[in-house]
Amino acid sequence: MLLLHLSDVNEGRWADRLRETLAPYPVVRRGDAFDPADIAYVFVWKPKPDAFEGLTNLKAILSLGAGVDALLRHPGLPDGVPIVRFVDEDLTQCMSDYVVAHVTMHHRLYTRFRADQKARRWSQLYPPAAGKTHIGIMGLGVLGEDAARRLVALGFTLNGWSRSAKHLEGVTSFTGREQFDDFLAATDILVNLLPLTPETAGILNYETFGKLRRDGLIGGPVIINAARGGHQKEADIVRALADGTLGAASLDVFEVEPLPAESPLWDIEACYITPHIAAISNEGRGVPYFSRVIKDHEAGKPLVNVVDRTRGY
Amino acid sequence: MLLLHLSDVNEGRWADRLRETLAPYPVVRRGDAFDPADIAYVFVWKPKPDAFEGLTNLKAILSLGAGVDALLRHPGLPDGVPIVRFVDEDLTQCMSDYVVAHVTMHHRLYTRFRADQKARRWSQLYPPAAGKTHIGIMGLGVLGEDAARRLVALGFTLNGWSRSAKHLEGVTSFTGREQFDDFLAATDILVNLLPLTPETAGILNYETFGKLRRDGLIGGPVIINAARGGHQKEADIVRALADGTLGAASLDVFEVEPLPAESPLWDIEACYITPHIAAISNEGRGVPYFSRVIKDHEAGKPLVNVVDRTRGY
Repeated sequence: MLLLHLSDVNEGRWADRLRETLAPYPVVRRGDAFDPADIAYVFVWKPKPDAFEGLTNLKAILSLGAGVDALLRHPGLPDGVPIVRFVDEDLTQCMSDYVVAHVTMHHRLYTRFRADQKARRWSQLYPPAAGKTHIGIMGLGVLGEDAARRLVALGFTLNGWSRSAKHLEGVTSFTGREQFDDFLAATDILVNLLPLTPETAGILNYETFGKLRRDGLIGGPVIINAARGGHQKEADIVRALADGTLGAASLDVFEVEPLPAESPLWDIEACYITPHIAAISNEGRGVPYFSRVIKDHEAGKPLVNVVDRTRGY
Repeated sequence: MLLLHLSDVNEGRWADRLRETLAPYPVVRRGDAFDPADIAYVFVWKPKPDAFEGLTNLKAILSLGAGVDALLRHPGLPDGVPIVRFVDEDLTQCMSDYVVAHVTMHHRLYTRFRADQKARRWSQLYPPAAGKTHIGIMGLGVLGEDAARRLVALGFTLNGWSRSAKHLEGVTSFTGREQFDDFLAATDILVNLLPLTPETAGILNYETFGKLRRDGLIGGPVIINAARGGHQKEADIVRALADGTLGAASLDVFEVEPLPAESPLWDIEACYITPHIAAISNEGRGVPYFSRVIKDHEAGKPLVNVVDRTRGY
């Protein structure tokens, strides 16, 4: 029997899809009636303190997150039960696909040429070569590093901002709060790939926007947020796009999702809205992955992508 | 004295900008009054048969084109005069910038998400990872090869079509007319970087569009033309975008330029028009380059980027 224990995602949707794929194998949720001793697999995301209580016959713990650092610190984590993590190469690729598409679109002055097209105006303006445009990536984890590497290969000038210094080829490293302003002053297109923490919440605000390099990109600086809605102050984005502090914004995430129909962001020409589809661990990729893990293991095959608890990944 | 002999470009604009930069060094055009024996430098693009008549004291011939094949076949080309060609690394970079920006925009289903935004519609759809999208590049010269290399680094699946087979890492090579249909059937996004010749004129036509892969890209196949307007049948593009044979088109070049105000292309949402600015040898880059060539040579320094007439480049 599979128990779902997923916080902060649509657990009901995962349950429906997993039941479909695994049937007749039983799938239960926390509110359902079941004997904890019957649970062979528990599928977790941000597990509560009591998540593993009574699960005395576990064959494996399945983790929706690729990173298991928080899970390994869980005080109730049972010893000796293998942990299978979600290895989703597509996720990193898709995030970089999104970041590269939006960086290059803004670099090539898409907003300007689209306005000219609407006016049937033939007005030649030559975007500078990629190297003249400075991309600043906030957050240099797996996602930030991959995006940076691909943008370097395209010829852009790259800055990275992270808590501790990172040495990536072709990327100028800025560290901590004390180098944040220098990082912004050297950046035309600001890409946010930070984790959401109390320190990073609301970091995409009017004051931040005002510190970006102003003589770099034609049309003004640009922000791209593909991390979390909690990073951005949407009222500040509306204000900055209106008064020219920002030239454009690409937003895949929002303070409230779905973005409410009354949000002023929808109508701003220079604001490029996508409905949180840059790259998430979605059921489309996760359901086949975890269904296969369970089916294969039930058929006697060994588990794959098992976490080494001493290494921590 | 510098003589300009530039066909098919805005010679007047070049003259104004070169006069500004070179002053007080004299700059003349063909219609001006001057003694041919006073001309030390002639700056040519598509020179007429009499271009070099009477120019008995030339120190150098400056060629606007990077390729000098046509110039070397000019029957009036004086022997022994060094030819300086335009080496513009920016040009290749800018062309790849344009191609990558438009390929990634279409791959990330920009047209679909923009329509959703206008309707204030939150409708999640996950673009597949880059590798699932097949890019077909027609023409694998310097420009096509550079664009292919960058798209391979981004993770796309690449096909190339050229007169003779090319071996580029990560690119499936298709050759000649006999493999053209196979090339199209394996391509979701068709990028044209061919030279314009009698064989390639009009190659972007309705029949070609109908042979592109239909189950690849959500929304239908896409064409990107960054080569010459003579490659495309604009009436066929309008028809193909209307009936769904094409999902979208990015056009930087047109049958008539500037694109006439009455062209139906302007109003098509899925047609992305730029005013021939993907990458051309424009005054912005050419004026500083050729001004420096003349100033340095007048100051006694040796010429740079001199053509080896026996090698042909």
